[in-house]
Amino acid sequence: MIEKKMEQLGYPLPNARKPLYEYVPVVIHNNLAFVSGQLPRVSGQLKYCGKVGEEITIETAQEAARICIVNALTVLNYELGSLDKVKRIVKMTGFVNARHGFKDQSTVIDGASNLLVDIFGEKGQHARSAIGAGDLPGQSPVEIELIVATE
Amino acid sequence: MIEKKMEQLGYPLPNARKPLYEYVPVVIHNNLAFVSGQLPRVSGQLKYCGKVGEEITIETAQEAARICIVNALTVLNYELGSLDKVKRIVKMTGFVNARHGFKDQSTVIDGASNLLVDIFGEKGQHARSAIGAGDLPGQSPVEIELIVATE
Amino acid sequence: MIEKKMEQLGYPLPNARKPLYEYVPVVIHNNLAFVSGQLPRVSGQLKYCGKVGEEITIETAQEAARICIVNALTVLNYELGSLDKVKRIVKMTGFVNARHGFKDQSTVIDGASNLLVDIFGEKGQHARSAIGAGDLPGQSPVEIELIVATE
Repeated sequence: MIEKKMEQLGYPLPNARKPLYEYVPVVIHNNLAFVSGQLPRVSGQLKYCGKVGEEITIETAQEAARICIVNALTVLNYELGSLDKVKRIVKMTGFVNARHGFKDQSTVIDGASNLLVDIFGEKGQHARSAIGAGDLPGQSPVEIELIVATE
Repeated sequence: MIEKKMEQLGYPLPNARKPLYEYVPVVIHNNLAFVSGQLPRVSGQLKYCGKVGEEITIETAQEAARICIVNALTVLNYELGSLDKVKRIVKMTGFVNARHGFKDQSTVIDGASNLLVDIFGEKGQHARSAIGAGDLPGQSPVEIELIVATE
Repeated sequence: MIEKKMEQLGYPLPNARKPLYEYVPVVIHNNLAFVSGQLPRVSGQLKYCGKVGEEITIETAQEAARICIVNALTVLNYELGSLDKVKRIVKMTGFVNARHGFKDQSTVIDGASNLLVDIFGEKGQHARSAIGAGDLPGQSPVEIELIVATE
């Protein structure tokens, strides 16, 4: 069971929080769930803030990426009732907010990719883009969105 | 009727314009419409140009975001015959071209999110990502793309 | 036959390479193929490296964009068995890594759009966004992802 697996990995699911804006966290159409861009918020506050390669190390940015994934799965779990209904992580887009000239966007986003595979196994293997953003909301170091196939 | 609603809100639909490039404005596959990234063009010209936090205020950028939505709905209406065939706004991705260090991408893109909900009500509630771009085509302050479920 | 057509256009398909990371090059769900963000790699190495408007001209960036398309079609061909199973190129997102203040992201990405139409004809006409990135992995000048409808 996915929720237990996440606890074992040290990433227990927090409670879903009310979204801050007019948009919604997840829209499902024809068994394809579109999960809104997630920031590394914990208890509603950005846990990490700043540019990778300046205030934020690559290792911290990888941890921030993992928190984005936990937040994505939190809202998905709330919507689906259970993460066991996840059929496949289809696509991840990861945006990295880094110093000018930064080259290691892929390494940062690997934090998120690896966690998805740790949690879901083969179902967690996804298509992916890792992109350098200009900046990100609240100067978050990373923002991640998912497209997920559901039962 | 959606077209009337848009007029009442002060955003009448303009005529669809021929795309400038080899791509097309909308591709529909299995009742899912992918709308190309829209700029705040009016009569074919960028109405606003420059970076948010420099030449462009947040309020102006929100208005630019609303024009992107009007343009997205214009090409969607042309493709569908009527916006009444919109079943759900599934996903919006909003890119903001701002000064270095800008934090309020979400506030800018709220302009677009709120307009979609004003126009479509519950059907307009969408998953969303707000991203800071490096630059945008023509130095547009904002670019918005949509995925829309259709009847 | 699409593979022959690509040879005639001077873009023969190379062999698919093992992905470098935990993610996979293509995920197909309900006949919709999501192709991971592609860089202008040739034989596993970035052929072009640097920012458009600095080390890289617009013409070179267009060629880099075409290599991204060849790489996307290489992994898609590997997954599908044949590119003749492509029903429609649905959506392209093109990210351009350029000097600060660059305006011609659309012109760069036209390199990719035109090649898709040269290869696939009407089936190659796609919805598209052209976005200025902050930076890109390895300082690639361009990164392109595709969504493709398949038989």
